[in-house]
Amino acid sequence: MVSDKVAIIGAGMTRFHHSLHIDKSAREMFIEAFTDCVGSVDKGMNHKDIEALFIANTVSELFEHQSHLSSLIPDWLGLLPIPSTRIETACASSSTALEMGVLAIASGMYDMVLVGGLEKMTALRTDEVTWALMSGMDQVYESPQGVSNPALYAMMGMAHFKKYGSSWDQLASISIKNHYNASLNPKAQYQSEVIDIAKKVGQKKGLSFKNEMDFLKSDANPYVAYPLRLFDCSPISDGASTLILASAKKAKEFTDTPIYISGIGHTSGTMSLHDREDLTTIPAAVEAGKRAHKMAVTKPKDIDLAMVHDCFTPAEMIATEDLGFFKKGEGGKAAEEGRTSLKGEIPINTDGGLKAKGHPIAATGTAMTHEIWKQLRGEADKRQIQNAETGLTHNVGATGGTAVVQIFKR
Amino acid sequence: MVSDKVAIIGAGMTRFHHSLHIDKSAREMFIEAFTDCVGSVDKGMNHKDIEALFIANTVSELFEHQSHLSSLIPDWLGLLPIPSTRIETACASSSTALEMGVLAIASGMYDMVLVGGLEKMTALRTDEVTWALMSGMDQVYESPQGVSNPALYAMMGMAHFKKYGSSWDQLASISIKNHYNASLNPKAQYQSEVIDIAKKVGQKKGLSFKNEMDFLKSDANPYVAYPLRLFDCSPISDGASTLILASAKKAKEFTDTPIYISGIGHTSGTMSLHDREDLTTIPAAVEAGKRAHKMAVTKPKDIDLAMVHDCFTPAEMIATEDLGFFKKGEGGKAAEEGRTSLKGEIPINTDGGLKAKGHPIAATGTAMTHEIWKQLRGEADKRQIQNAETGLTHNVGATGGTAVVQIFKR
Repeated sequence: MVSDKVAIIGAGMTRFHHSLHIDKSAREMFIEAFTDCVGSVDKGMNHKDIEALFIANTVSELFEHQSHLSSLIPDWLGLLPIPSTRIETACASSSTALEMGVLAIASGMYDMVLVGGLEKMTALRTDEVTWALMSGMDQVYESPQGVSNPALYAMMGMAHFKKYGSSWDQLASISIKNHYNASLNPKAQYQSEVIDIAKKVGQKKGLSFKNEMDFLKSDANPYVAYPLRLFDCSPISDGASTLILASAKKAKEFTDTPIYISGIGHTSGTMSLHDREDLTTIPAAVEAGKRAHKMAVTKPKDIDLAMVHDCFTPAEMIATEDLGFFKKGEGGKAAEEGRTSLKGEIPINTDGGLKAKGHPIAATGTAMTHEIWKQLRGEADKRQIQNAETGLTHNVGATGGTAVVQIFKR
Repeated sequence: MVSDKVAIIGAGMTRFHHSLHIDKSAREMFIEAFTDCVGSVDKGMNHKDIEALFIANTVSELFEHQSHLSSLIPDWLGLLPIPSTRIETACASSSTALEMGVLAIASGMYDMVLVGGLEKMTALRTDEVTWALMSGMDQVYESPQGVSNPALYAMMGMAHFKKYGSSWDQLASISIKNHYNASLNPKAQYQSEVIDIAKKVGQKKGLSFKNEMDFLKSDANPYVAYPLRLFDCSPISDGASTLILASAKKAKEFTDTPIYISGIGHTSGTMSLHDREDLTTIPAAVEAGKRAHKMAVTKPKDIDLAMVHDCFTPAEMIATEDLGFFKKGEGGKAAEEGRTSLKGEIPINTDGGLKAKGHPIAATGTAMTHEIWKQLRGEADKRQIQNAETGLTHNVGATGGTAVVQIFKR
């Protein structure tokens, strides 16, 4: 009933960054992303054509002591009095906002809506950000044990190593790939390959690294939560991203190349890791993938490229298995063999991923879709995947309490 | 396209209270409301028939340092792996969750969904609650001026007094009416009429009050923000409320008396009062009312009873005017004359309103609808409005940055 009824006619975002937006509030970043988005509409549009907003944000209550962004944003965009709703499902928030926009249009209530996400993380210190993000975990049963987000994903990685013989070297290859992809993406937070960072750090510290792995295994890449080192972790980022959705019928007025939302799978899973039988998979993501493919009438082999939730490198390894791109236990090996690179059989995180593109939490989902939009329209420049027709996004809230998989077609 | 396509087949809530739920976390209150809701379905149901959740919460990040309730709630309700989304539009949050549920079903994606709201406010001290709720105001331009929520509504009341000659005595009559209605509602926080409270307070303090107004004008009813006194303000409350929605077709399997959602008006307004031309009205609410009536094909005179957002007594006075029940400037007089009482021409807040039923912020919207559901089905006991066929809810986020008006029919 919903598949292909709604299309994306515009996509925009700020660059994701840790210092670039330091003087901007979240609302100002959102305006920047919105302006970029309106400018991307092929045949132009009047922003007053937008009938409703779905704004994703995770915890601006903690970052800026600002809730009720649903009111603030349309006010600042000059879009009053249209309806506006704030959506939150932890890291999956803006993928869920996209889903709400699709349902709202498919219901017949609206023809055109704006969806997007924003996060102003640098308003807090690093330790405070870790504290704020832990609010996405169970505050009664999980957080009090002293675990942090990197620690939880480190446990998932270790369980995978033990069960399947995967290795930290494989995880490092994911980080190297994502940094390479980000070096080709002007919207990415880090636009340097790991080898170039190694050279810079080496010069600064008077050290000489033989190659990337020599650098990544050195103290210059310190442990965050064993076995995860700094380069296994997505950074703290500020940013905003937006999409304009229209009914399939209306979309043709604005562009000859709309991107259709063909499949949506949104599921919930146990919030805490201690309630999972197996830490090497995220059951909610497996189920979300199945639901998305069922709606889109596709299979994993039909997907030309995918953006997956690599908040930490084990997450990407597990995602590529959960999504059926590789057999269980072989995701790390596949990455190491280059099968997920730009020239691989299934390019993963062509935009640099959360690892190198950045991860302003609630802005991530629609930013993943921003990359799919670029790729399916053939506008991804040096990171373009040839003849990409079908793309997938995989977004996970926290450690898998929420999972959203979405499939897009040209 | 959406009107009357979706019906309510069950409604449930906890009692709203300031101490009753002191040992329960938000999730436990939600389970209680859900159990009440499932039990209210006439022909019974299997909770596994629910396909999606829309959970409203305003700032549990600040109350319990808990975000990602969208994952926690289905986990605790035994509803994994169904999709779940957290919705926030300040005080209007669960009215918006109800709207999302309606759109989701109308889109054809689901046949049956659960919507609801929860808030655990007593997790903080009173001064901290005021601080937490101020996050719903603009943190750059309004909050730094030192205003609090009561102060903002006090300004709106004063502007109304000045422009229309309304009075604090009229506001007091709203408080007295709502306490009376709450005295007939077993789910209400306060189940005492003001006169009974006056007697109790009198005995305790060795004072004698001639009547309700003598009490309300005494120091026993202290100023909070001039001209608002304690009894002009809704209390701090814990609570949860839920509704089960089904497609109109499916609803008949579960009940012979579904309540249809006929009209929805959801709008945004300027977040800050300083951006309004006139403080005596909430433009977003006026527009939301128009939109809801347009969809439901009704007029104000068709409404048999209404639940309006009386976070502070001026809010109810203004709401009854904004909704077109009374001419601009005459809302206070109408209340004083009893025209909004249980036996009046348009009964307002038959459940006691936010003032006396309680106001656990995000639980309020679906609790308003809970009362409409009871009334339209003839199950409101001593507060029953005879032959009620069409009911309206009016919910406002903060001072009018969001407004949601919804119309329900038997």
